Amino acid sequence: MADKQLEDLFLDTLKDIYYAERQILKALPKMAKAATSAELKAGFEQHQAETETQVERLERGFELIGKPARGKTCDAILGILDEGKTIMEEFKGSQALDAGLVAAAQAVEHYEIARYGTLRSWAKQLGMTEAADLFSQTLAEEEATDKKLTQVALSVANQKAA
Amino acid sequence: MADKQLEDLFLDTLKDIYYAERQILKALPKMAKAATSAELKAGFEQHQAETETQVERLERGFELIGKPARGKTCDAILGILDEGKTIMEEFKGSQALDAGLVAAAQAVEHYEIARYGTLRSWAKQLGMTEAADLFSQTLAEEEATDKKLTQVALSVANQKAA
Repeated sequence: MADKQLEDLFLDTLKDIYYAERQILKALPKMAKAATSAELKAGFEQHQAETETQVERLERGFELIGKPARGKTCDAILGILDEGKTIMEEFKGSQALDAGLVAAAQAVEHYEIARYGTLRSWAKQLGMTEAADLFSQTLAEEEATDKKLTQVALSVANQKAA
Repeated sequence: MADKQLEDLFLDTLKDIYYAERQILKALPKMAKAATSAELKAGFEQHQAETETQVERLERGFELIGKPARGKTCDAILGILDEGKTIMEEFKGSQALDAGLVAAAQAVEHYEIARYGTLRSWAKQLGMTEAADLFSQTLAEEEATDKKLTQVALSVANQKAA
């Protein structure tokens, strides 16, 4: 039996999403700037503010297990954000740019939904009630953002069609 | 106004998920082999069969737009699967291995959920009813797999605790 346990998995994943959130914080202003629809632009700006709070919750998570808040390179989020960057470059000036930005943002949201769902479940198993509550709050925000992006996509599509 | 339109975005994303699904097909047998719980192992094997059908649906999608079925390197899925590989290596022999495998698989599922949700919505906008139906079927399977993984995680955790 290896020494590594659920506590290690929890810490690894906390570091992974901490790194990811900070990459997302850097990407969001670029996505807001690129968006042509005012609704989408405002959505990215609002999510930027939310993400700052989510980062603080993660820092509280590290504090609860007595570890320094440190990220660990997350290749998944780098790949997801790179795909977003490619869309911004290749679809600059296109009517489809906003649709591409929404798709890129939803891939980011779903990565976060997976990670926070996992972290909440592990926090519960480890008896960490406060951490589980923090992850629940963030998870609810990410799910709400994903739904809102679906609505924005429809509204953007309807405007283009009109 | 750039020349690129929603049709191009649709084709790019189809290629992205086609590449991703075929990478997943290669990863699933390794995840099934690594899993210690019989339930999780069986889950990965069942999802392997499902994924084969999903790949066929994507090939039908290419056919519907008169394009050859060709993938395009998807850095997002490579990053997600790499994180899974790291868990398999680092947690080999650990009681937490199955929990890590479930987490890795749920990150994969959420990537697919994001992509198929987007493709379905674009197919509808482009008036491609058959393609939209195909993506709906796959989306329902991915969402069911994600829910099932959450249940397996709980059952695995309860067995370890018992």
